[in-house]
Amino acid sequence: MPASVSGSARITTMDVLDVRFPTSDHLDGSDAMNPEPDYSAAYVRLRTDAGDGHEGHALAFTTGRGNEVQANAIAALTSHVVGRSVAEVCGDLGGFARSLTHDPQLRWLGPEKGAVHMAAGAVVNAVWDLAAKRAGKPVWRFLGEMSPEEIVAQIDFRWLSDALTPDDALDILRRSLPGRQERITLLLEHGYPAYTTTPGWLGYSDEKLARLSREAVAAGFGQIKLKVGADIEDDIRRMKTARQAVGDDIRIAVDANQRWDVQPAIDWMRRLAPYDPYWIEEPTSPDDILGHAAVRRALRPIKVATGEHIPNRVVFKQLLQAGAVDIVQIDAARVGGINENVAILLLAAKFGVPVCPHAGGVGLCEMVQHLSMFDFVAVSATTRDRVIEYVDHLHEHFADPVRVVGGRYAAPTAPGLSAQMLPASLAKYAYPGGPVWAARV
Amino acid sequence: MPASVSGSARITTMDVLDVRFPTSDHLDGSDAMNPEPDYSAAYVRLRTDAGDGHEGHALAFTTGRGNEVQANAIAALTSHVVGRSVAEVCGDLGGFARSLTHDPQLRWLGPEKGAVHMAAGAVVNAVWDLAAKRAGKPVWRFLGEMSPEEIVAQIDFRWLSDALTPDDALDILRRSLPGRQERITLLLEHGYPAYTTTPGWLGYSDEKLARLSREAVAAGFGQIKLKVGADIEDDIRRMKTARQAVGDDIRIAVDANQRWDVQPAIDWMRRLAPYDPYWIEEPTSPDDILGHAAVRRALRPIKVATGEHIPNRVVFKQLLQAGAVDIVQIDAARVGGINENVAILLLAAKFGVPVCPHAGGVGLCEMVQHLSMFDFVAVSATTRDRVIEYVDHLHEHFADPVRVVGGRYAAPTAPGLSAQMLPASLAKYAYPGGPVWAARV
Repeated sequence: MPASVSGSARITTMDVLDVRFPTSDHLDGSDAMNPEPDYSAAYVRLRTDAGDGHEGHALAFTTGRGNEVQANAIAALTSHVVGRSVAEVCGDLGGFARSLTHDPQLRWLGPEKGAVHMAAGAVVNAVWDLAAKRAGKPVWRFLGEMSPEEIVAQIDFRWLSDALTPDDALDILRRSLPGRQERITLLLEHGYPAYTTTPGWLGYSDEKLARLSREAVAAGFGQIKLKVGADIEDDIRRMKTARQAVGDDIRIAVDANQRWDVQPAIDWMRRLAPYDPYWIEEPTSPDDILGHAAVRRALRPIKVATGEHIPNRVVFKQLLQAGAVDIVQIDAARVGGINENVAILLLAAKFGVPVCPHAGGVGLCEMVQHLSMFDFVAVSATTRDRVIEYVDHLHEHFADPVRVVGGRYAAPTAPGLSAQMLPASLAKYAYPGGPVWAARV
Repeated sequence: MPASVSGSARITTMDVLDVRFPTSDHLDGSDAMNPEPDYSAAYVRLRTDAGDGHEGHALAFTTGRGNEVQANAIAALTSHVVGRSVAEVCGDLGGFARSLTHDPQLRWLGPEKGAVHMAAGAVVNAVWDLAAKRAGKPVWRFLGEMSPEEIVAQIDFRWLSDALTPDDALDILRRSLPGRQERITLLLEHGYPAYTTTPGWLGYSDEKLARLSREAVAAGFGQIKLKVGADIEDDIRRMKTARQAVGDDIRIAVDANQRWDVQPAIDWMRRLAPYDPYWIEEPTSPDDILGHAAVRRALRPIKVATGEHIPNRVVFKQLLQAGAVDIVQIDAARVGGINENVAILLLAAKFGVPVCPHAGGVGLCEMVQHLSMFDFVAVSATTRDRVIEYVDHLHEHFADPVRVVGGRYAAPTAPGLSAQMLPASLAKYAYPGGPVWAARV
């Protein structure tokens, strides 16, 4: 009898790998605050003695320097993971997630923010990958087929009860129970809408911007995004270039990556307003809830979006309470993993605000698609005004890469979280010892 | 001619040490969220080739596990520090601080929060220690004798301008120019008022609480603090015990260390209200600006205090904008160092809110006293309703420990930041190789 059936199987190892891609070579990913990123992953691989061949894979994304700090923070969680019962951990993912984020000593480095929280998220996501593989389902479906009570059990409601209680969450999930199976079928047949950031990196020429914008429309995208915030005259010219390239019916979002103070954000965006920007993303500090609210009040009807640097559910809660955002941008690798993102999806549903995930980086598209598809199946039950960011970088390194066809993410069908990287890529881009880096250092 | 005179001296090494004290043995430092802390320091030591014998020492405080992550985050800053000109760095501490917090790759792990930001703070503070030693002054006086323009140059105003501009800061500092020298003399003669947390740890018996409370009053303290939040009946009994021990004229603050959601915080504190708590500290998540504001509205006249876990100036800004706090509790080792704390002192002054620093831990009293004394000399120019926390732990490990006499911090006179630990202590408590830990592991 395999150990998994007996229930005695344990998590035996947690490997943490430092993997970096030299993306700064080509200015892919360049924006007003990240001029030369080397997209990187602090990668987690869990193994068990269950004898079923399943492993748990996930990662925390960084932009280069500091990836070793992130890897070190993940390794600090080892004693919470290795030796634990596979059945118990996979059977109580909510309790497992809390055991990581509530460590009374490690939480001093947060609480629930920065490297230690991203570390918890990577480990939690790796266990979701393992649990979904054991269940033989992609995560979106594994989660989307849970009962409302099981989903609510995933959530740490600490510090949320003034905005979302377990009963609120149950109400939302029960309202969406009818039609779940039809929505699963819809996803499998038609996928989930995407938008693309590929045309709009700051480092690209106007010609490249125009060409990539036209290609995006031809490929079926209804929305593109441009990076802004380095130079206002450049931004006006680039916005005009993109608008001319795509016409009036395509949404153009812009993204300042936190570059501005509050009033400069308002002033800058008013100059771009004639070209009909759909949303302004990260106009200012991700910590500035009141600042986002002020920007939103001043710029209506331009929408305000943020989230990729929001550290946890408590800040998302306040962005919603304060009416500071039109769009909630969850990120698969910033907060404490799938459990906390489920809480954030339910908060957004409670406040009636659409979720349009941040993605790109390394594996963020692969992971976050599961969350939006779960949202469609079991939470908001709609894709109206919802799109997942798509960036066409680095997917070739994944075992089950995203497939974006006709401007839509095809629903993954392989079991797990889609975050597993190819062994050859893990070896080649290992930092600093892999061949790509050894040749440079 | 020594290198320092020629201006060619460089920072040659940055050592990072993992130092931990097994404080969990005696439940010193126990509270509702930190049941068994091992007070620890990720310790920084800078050396130069100036030939003047001066080094820069500072630390990031943690509560045990994760101290290696913090040390690793500090080490990630090495390339920003080693090799730099001593004269340039000490002559432009504002620019130096920005070079650490604005690293476009490392900031992904924040931005300006968690391990990477505390790392920047430790390194920035070590350079302040070095700069003040070179100037032959304690930091409070080194900073307090700068011109308003020099002080304003220390501050990163990014994301602050909707609440505090350079002109606002200059106005505040210029208003306090008259009387600086008298206030320096007052500090040297009478010190700065303190309050003590020593009686109130959760792990202590009622008898110990009562005895230590009486001793605190006899020692000259006008305020004590109790940890609360684990059990309401215990808290009522402990609050009553402490009130009976100290009488009606001594302020008793209480500290929940983030334990509650918003409404539970209000409900719990209403039950303690008959014993006249002076402030409630950290009633809920440190990220919950709107939550603190709601608690404050409901509990008036009980004051609301927070800050030891506030990651940066942007969150302090909002706590003030939202009217969420009566007391700003800066911490010497949480934010990006002295530079960011100068910004927070000026924000508090702009909003007319008193600053009562968090201290304790390892070296926090030693460091933060300089900030309050600077505030008195050059910013708020008053000690009214201002007290520095004092906890009587671990001072014996410091080369220039705080001296609290008659319930007041004596003004340090030795040059530097007072954060330098004794070599014997650094060796004995080194983790995991020092003799204290080698015997345990």
